[in-house]
Amino acid sequence: MNETTREFLKIVSDIQGNELETAAFNIREDSQCAGRQSTPNIKIDSKEDGPGLVIHISKNAQKETVYIPACVTHGDVDDLVYNDFYVEAGADVIIVAGCGVHTSDGHDARHNGIHRFFIGKGAHVLYKEKHIGTGKGVGKRTIDPVTDAYLEDDAVLEMDTIQLSGVDSTVRKTSGKLGARAKLIIHERIMTDGDEKAKTEFEVELNGEDSGVDLVSRSVAKGNSYQEYHSTIKGNCRCTGHSECDAILVGNGKVNAAPALFAGDIDASLIHEAAIGKIAGEQLIKLQTLGLTSEEAEAKIIEGFLRG
Amino acid sequence: MNETTREFLKIVSDIQGNELETAAFNIREDSQCAGRQSTPNIKIDSKEDGPGLVIHISKNAQKETVYIPACVTHGDVDDLVYNDFYVEAGADVIIVAGCGVHTSDGHDARHNGIHRFFIGKGAHVLYKEKHIGTGKGVGKRTIDPVTDAYLEDDAVLEMDTIQLSGVDSTVRKTSGKLGARAKLIIHERIMTDGDEKAKTEFEVELNGEDSGVDLVSRSVAKGNSYQEYHSTIKGNCRCTGHSECDAILVGNGKVNAAPALFAGDIDASLIHEAAIGKIAGEQLIKLQTLGLTSEEAEAKIIEGFLRG
Repeated sequence: MNETTREFLKIVSDIQGNELETAAFNIREDSQCAGRQSTPNIKIDSKEDGPGLVIHISKNAQKETVYIPACVTHGDVDDLVYNDFYVEAGADVIIVAGCGVHTSDGHDARHNGIHRFFIGKGAHVLYKEKHIGTGKGVGKRTIDPVTDAYLEDDAVLEMDTIQLSGVDSTVRKTSGKLGARAKLIIHERIMTDGDEKAKTEFEVELNGEDSGVDLVSRSVAKGNSYQEYHSTIKGNCRCTGHSECDAILVGNGKVNAAPALFAGDIDASLIHEAAIGKIAGEQLIKLQTLGLTSEEAEAKIIEGFLRG
Repeated sequence: MNETTREFLKIVSDIQGNELETAAFNIREDSQCAGRQSTPNIKIDSKEDGPGLVIHISKNAQKETVYIPACVTHGDVDDLVYNDFYVEAGADVIIVAGCGVHTSDGHDARHNGIHRFFIGKGAHVLYKEKHIGTGKGVGKRTIDPVTDAYLEDDAVLEMDTIQLSGVDSTVRKTSGKLGARAKLIIHERIMTDGDEKAKTEFEVELNGEDSGVDLVSRSVAKGNSYQEYHSTIKGNCRCTGHSECDAILVGNGKVNAAPALFAGDIDASLIHEAAIGKIAGEQLIKLQTLGLTSEEAEAKIIEGFLRG
C-alpha cells in the first residue's frame, strides 16, 4: 500500500487507528488488491468472472463494519470494478466504500465502481461513500459510481454519500427496487468548484406495499462548476416517496435540477421539493456582525447546509 | 353559427348575454369564420400567409376584452390555426380563448391552436383559456394548444387555463421568454377521466433582470386517465421562479410530474414543489359527518382543490 493510499484511507474511510485489525476489509489500489481480510460473518472473495468482489454478509453480522476503499494513486489508470454484496436476512452492517483519485503526472485517473446490493428480508445496511480527488496538473480526476440496490421485504438501506472536492467529473447513478415495507434513505452531498462537473441520477421503484424512499440531495456549486440532478421516483403501489434537492450557488456555479415523480397507484403518495439560490444576504451579514469575515461567514453557512 | 357553437360559447367563453355586441371578437367554427368584430382599440385581421388571425391591441385598450373562441362541432375536422397577438406597450387587455370540440358521428375532431403573444413594455394581458370536449361515440376529441409568449420589459401575462372534461387527448405546450421585470403567472387546472390523456409542457426563460414566473398546476386524474407534467424554468439572470404541481389521484388515474429548474446565474432564485396523492381519508370523513355522501364529499374536495 503506497503513501497516497494511506492518506486516502484516513479521509475517505475515516480510518484513524487500528480499525482494520479486526474488521473485514479489501483495499483496492490502482486496480490491484493491496490487502484483504474476511471475518467469521463477512466473507470477501474475488469475483470469478471479472474485476471486483463478492461479499457475503451473514445474519450474525450485527453492527459490524466492512471497509472497501478504492484508490487510484497516479495517472493513466482507468479502474473498473464490480462489487456484489449479498446481505443475509436480519443482518445489520455498515459498509464504508470511500474512493480517492489522485493524479499529478498530467495523465487522467478514473475510478468506476459498480456496486450491487442484494439485501435480504429485514436486513439493515448503512452504506457510506466518500469521494475525493487530489493532485495537480492537467490530468483529469473522474469518479463514476453506479449503485444498484435490491431490497427485499422490510429491508432498510441508508446511503450517506459525499463528494468532498477535487473530482473533475462525476456521473453518479443509483437505482433501487423496493419490496414490501422496505425503506431506502439517501443523503447525498456534493460540492464542486473550478470547472468541475457532477451529474446525479436516481431511479427508485417502489414495488412493495408500504415501501418508502426519502431522498435528500444538497449541493454547492462554486467557481464555474456545473451540477445536474435527475431523480425519478415510481410509486407502483401503496407507498411513500419524498425527494428534496437544494442547491447553493456561489460565483458562476450552475445547477440543473430535474426530479420526476410517477404515481401509478392511487395509494402512492409522492412529494418533491427543490430550491436553488445563493446564500441570503441577511445570513451573511448576521455572521459578519458576529465577527466573521465574509469568506468565513460563507464557509460557515455552506458547512451547515451540507451537514443538514 | 350553429347550435353546438352557441352552446360552447356559453361554456368556454362565459358569454351569458350581450357581451359580443360591443366587444372585439372572432368566432371560429369548423375552420371557418362565423363572425368577427374589431373595435377602435382592438383590430382583428385574417392572417395573410395561412389560417388564423393577426390581432393588434392598442395602448388605448384598457381593461378591454377580446373573445376568440374556436369550436369544432362535428367529426372529420382537423382544425389548425395560427393566431398572433401584438399588444402595444401600456395596453391592458383580457383575451378569452375558449375551445370546444364536439363529435358524435364516430369520426375524430381536433383543434390545434398556435398562439403567439408579443407583449409590449408594461402591457398587461390576462389570457383565459377554457377547453371542453362533448359528444358521444368513438370519435376522438383532441385539443392541442401551443402558446408562445414574448414579454418585453415590465410586461405581465397572466394565463388562466382550465380543461373541464371530455377531451380524449391533449398536448399543451407553453413557452415564455421574459424581459426585465416582466412577470408570467400561469394557473392551470386539468381534470381527466376515463381513458383520457393530458400532457403539459412549460418552458420559461427568465432573461431580463428581476423577471419572475409563478407556475401553479393542479390536476385531477380519475378513471384510467393519465397525465404528464413537464416544466423547465431557466433562470439566466437575477430572477425568481416558482413552480408548483399538485395532483389528486382517483380510481386508476396516473400522474407523471417532471419539473426542472435550471439556475444559470448566482442571482437566480428558483423553487419547485410537487405533491401527488389521493384525497386524505380524514377529509372525506369530515365532510361525510356533515351529511354529504362519499361521492359528494369527493366532488367537493376536488372542486376546492381545482379552484385553489
